[in-house]
Amino acid sequence: MASTTRAMVRLPTSSIGFRAVNAARRGFATSQSQTQLLTHVRPSSRVLDKSKLQQQFRRGYADVAPAKKPKRFRFFRNIWRLTYLGAIGGTAYLAWGVWDLRHPDDQFEPDPHKKNLVVLGTGWGAVSLLKKLDTENYNVIVISPRNYFLFTPLLPSCTTGTVEHRSIMEPIRSITRHKKAAVKFYEAEATKIDPERKVIFINDNSDVKGASNKTEVPYDMLVVSVGAENATFGIPGVKEHSCFLKEIGDAQQIRKKIMDCVETATFKDQSPEEVERLLHMVVVGGGPTGVEFAGELQDFFDQDIKKWIPEISDKFKVTLIEALPNVLPMFSKQLIEYTESTFKEEKITIMTKTAVKKVTDKTVEAEATGPDGKKTMQIMPYGLLVWATGNAVRPVIKDLMSQIPAQKDSRRGLAVNEYLVVQGTKDIWATGDCAVAGYAPTAQVASQEGAFLARLFNTMAKSEAIESQIHDLSSSLNITPGNTAEIAKQIESHEKQLRRIKDIKPFHYTHQGSLAYIGSERAVADVSWLNGNFATGGGLTYLFWRSAYLSMCFSTRNRVLVVLDWLKSKAFGRDVSRE
Amino acid sequence: MASTTRAMVRLPTSSIGFRAVNAARRGFATSQSQTQLLTHVRPSSRVLDKSKLQQQFRRGYADVAPAKKPKRFRFFRNIWRLTYLGAIGGTAYLAWGVWDLRHPDDQFEPDPHKKNLVVLGTGWGAVSLLKKLDTENYNVIVISPRNYFLFTPLLPSCTTGTVEHRSIMEPIRSITRHKKAAVKFYEAEATKIDPERKVIFINDNSDVKGASNKTEVPYDMLVVSVGAENATFGIPGVKEHSCFLKEIGDAQQIRKKIMDCVETATFKDQSPEEVERLLHMVVVGGGPTGVEFAGELQDFFDQDIKKWIPEISDKFKVTLIEALPNVLPMFSKQLIEYTESTFKEEKITIMTKTAVKKVTDKTVEAEATGPDGKKTMQIMPYGLLVWATGNAVRPVIKDLMSQIPAQKDSRRGLAVNEYLVVQGTKDIWATGDCAVAGYAPTAQVASQEGAFLARLFNTMAKSEAIESQIHDLSSSLNITPGNTAEIAKQIESHEKQLRRIKDIKPFHYTHQGSLAYIGSERAVADVSWLNGNFATGGGLTYLFWRSAYLSMCFSTRNRVLVVLDWLKSKAFGRDVSRE
Repeated sequence: MASTTRAMVRLPTSSIGFRAVNAARRGFATSQSQTQLLTHVRPSSRVLDKSKLQQQFRRGYADVAPAKKPKRFRFFRNIWRLTYLGAIGGTAYLAWGVWDLRHPDDQFEPDPHKKNLVVLGTGWGAVSLLKKLDTENYNVIVISPRNYFLFTPLLPSCTTGTVEHRSIMEPIRSITRHKKAAVKFYEAEATKIDPERKVIFINDNSDVKGASNKTEVPYDMLVVSVGAENATFGIPGVKEHSCFLKEIGDAQQIRKKIMDCVETATFKDQSPEEVERLLHMVVVGGGPTGVEFAGELQDFFDQDIKKWIPEISDKFKVTLIEALPNVLPMFSKQLIEYTESTFKEEKITIMTKTAVKKVTDKTVEAEATGPDGKKTMQIMPYGLLVWATGNAVRPVIKDLMSQIPAQKDSRRGLAVNEYLVVQGTKDIWATGDCAVAGYAPTAQVASQEGAFLARLFNTMAKSEAIESQIHDLSSSLNITPGNTAEIAKQIESHEKQLRRIKDIKPFHYTHQGSLAYIGSERAVADVSWLNGNFATGGGLTYLFWRSAYLSMCFSTRNRVLVVLDWLKSKAFGRDVSRE
Repeated sequence: MASTTRAMVRLPTSSIGFRAVNAARRGFATSQSQTQLLTHVRPSSRVLDKSKLQQQFRRGYADVAPAKKPKRFRFFRNIWRLTYLGAIGGTAYLAWGVWDLRHPDDQFEPDPHKKNLVVLGTGWGAVSLLKKLDTENYNVIVISPRNYFLFTPLLPSCTTGTVEHRSIMEPIRSITRHKKAAVKFYEAEATKIDPERKVIFINDNSDVKGASNKTEVPYDMLVVSVGAENATFGIPGVKEHSCFLKEIGDAQQIRKKIMDCVETATFKDQSPEEVERLLHMVVVGGGPTGVEFAGELQDFFDQDIKKWIPEISDKFKVTLIEALPNVLPMFSKQLIEYTESTFKEEKITIMTKTAVKKVTDKTVEAEATGPDGKKTMQIMPYGLLVWATGNAVRPVIKDLMSQIPAQKDSRRGLAVNEYLVVQGTKDIWATGDCAVAGYAPTAQVASQEGAFLARLFNTMAKSEAIESQIHDLSSSLNITPGNTAEIAKQIESHEKQLRRIKDIKPFHYTHQGSLAYIGSERAVADVSWLNGNFATGGGLTYLFWRSAYLSMCFSTRNRVLVVLDWLKSKAFGRDVSRE
């Protein structure tokens, strides 16, 4: 109580506190309202000495002054209340998001007379299209061998268990089930597209096959978003001996293989050379995927493997091979230098201007070009080889291109016009890595292309509806010659609307920036900012990298799971089980 | 403020509150101490009407009575405080557990002159032994093709994603690295045990192989905890076409296959018969594993698949086949009945007294014995077949048994004596499913056997140390004939200690009970209680099942991860991605 009194004397800010303090200064007086109220109370007959009085004053005063805190505390309390309310609001919003995600409304079956819109793929382009498409305008059919969308930017984190693979997958049904009109999904691979007959041949390639496992699907409109394959550039041994990093299965295989190398290195009587080989991890490709994977790998070793298997702590080595003169070619010069110096700190070896020529089960043969232009051949024994470089055209796309004369000069995929229509075709559009629109093969491009097509198709449906209305009005003009002026006015207004809608601009890509994680909790970012560019690298950029990726995640579910995974791997470390 | 006043009038329990209430009853009086203090305050000249007075009284009174709450609130506040402190304490304990788990101390290398204690396996028996073993007494070497411990009771939950597989795995290193003396681990399969030469032949069977991938490991003491294989009883087609449920890989395969069946059933133009076949999931084996899997499967369908893929909602069917007259034979009769009626509610078909005779890629042929003893053959088309019944002896154990004449009559595994020594051998012990000690092949038995061996080995090391001390003292008796009496006394005391230590009782299994999840958030439990048995089933038992399994988890990490998984699958549902 005494301490409250003291605090109040020191902090006379609130009005009540102020009054109380004035009262305290005056000695034994109390606040005015009480003075008025207490006038007819009989006076005490006892004589009080000063200390007793003071003591009683304190007790009394503590009774008089309620436990109100002065303004400084009130400020903190308000901040606290705001935080509190914010947290409650945030939780409620999150809970609503989760609830909504799990409780899709009933859907109606689309009119079978509408056009068949077939989407091939469940990657960035396809999903971005599906998200924005008004499915009630078409009979939408999605075909893909993968019944989920994969958030590829976090795939390198999956290889070491910083993030679990299911956290970055979103079932395609959770996208299609939330549309107003039902969308069909077939888990199958498109093996051939026939633009003449307007059909797609599909094939159920998974383990479980039904009596119907090969069939054809007719389309009126087709969106090809099947992505690309891994390019091996015809280098012998790559396909047989290296791991890729494109799908969930790849990440799982790498994760298993890292621990397999470690366990084999600790096998009884393993020779020192063999231990060195097994613990040498080679990454080919200095793009964001290769760089992020190398960083994650070194993190995994430094933060976890080393602790649990101390006997190999000085033998782990990561090498990054890139044919170009530097890694991360899409980033600004200072960020490239920052990445290279960070890698040096982390003891990751970067070999630029080095071209892999041959891969065997235990060695990589690469030709390095020295600063003097001299070429030297190096043979590097390795335990794990990850091939993270370049895209190749999928067979189904190659086949389609061979059927279209206008595509004969295109090498890297389907050449598309500024509305993403595949050149030389009608009613076929393409997005993402299988389309050549003049942009880099990135998730950002594919995603914007998909969204553009959704707008385009929604507009087309709307304008068709208006056109048919105009058509109806025009016919009624001829039948009922009554209020011609009124009808003409209506037609005019519809045509105006139509012109406005039809005025859709060609696809234009807006680059928002590039991000890459480079290990030991640092990242680099080249972000488009107003009309310029903002280049930054380091620990804070890492936080930015995390929040940017988090905000890009497909659903609330993904976001929550990824955050939980980050917390889990921070608290418990990454799992060193080989599985 | 008025409400505070009212509350205080209603609840006059604390002493201050009581005084205040009395004051309120008296009209305008205030508490005594204030009365005394305020006597010389000048009286107010204003005349106050009653309502104004009352209002002012209220304000004044609110000022007078501090924000102290009466006892009932205090009680709640105390409860709250206790909860609060408990939560803080619990969090601190948890944080400490996590920290401790991640920060093992440095280990010392054990004396190479000590005996080689080789443990084969990383299952319940082996891990329970390792947990309690004082590793400084031996050169401990663990050999297993799996570098982690698997919490098998939650494996059925993994098949549908209620729990993620990594949550129930604990790396063997996190067990061995926390021992005082270093423990070697080789990730390899034991292919042969030679009890004559006292060596084990091991083989690195994983994908990544070093130059050294086959070798032999000598032992002085050997513990065999390699478990058992899946028994197919020689029924044709089982090995080729069914999934088992013993390892993580099995659970992953089942999870993938469930969704593959669902996706194939929704493939274009699939015939109704084929859809029915694909969505018919057959489980063979009515033990806890089979029953739990059937329950989880039906949950997955009812709670998740149905929502995302409504077109197949009435076609999913689970059938449980058991050769015995009822499921869960180790449970009491009323629980068996409860399980059967629950399954009926869930629409899981139970076929008892039915023996599978043949399996093809699409059908199960089974012979059912009717109540009249008449046998009928049934052919059931299926989409997924899970074989969860019985154990078979592993080849390495069969081979060992063939080398030991005393084992020639043993059929189901290594016959062991009451100290778990493999009969007909010296220095070989066996635990768990590969040992025949007269108990059921359960995790509980294996775990208790492992713990028993740890105690046995710790005691053996202690008694050996004392024996060598006695030996030293005896020799000193002969050399220095001086204080013979003193030395003799010491020897006697040591011998006494030795007798006490050596008096180790044979292994005795204490059955703690049986638990099984039966779907739709219900479980059955038969728990040993005092000298009797406590049988219970239902929703509360399900909570008990959860908490029991949680407490049995290997580490704090496992516990936290499993709880998070439960919350995740509750909030977001199970993932329907085929992966």
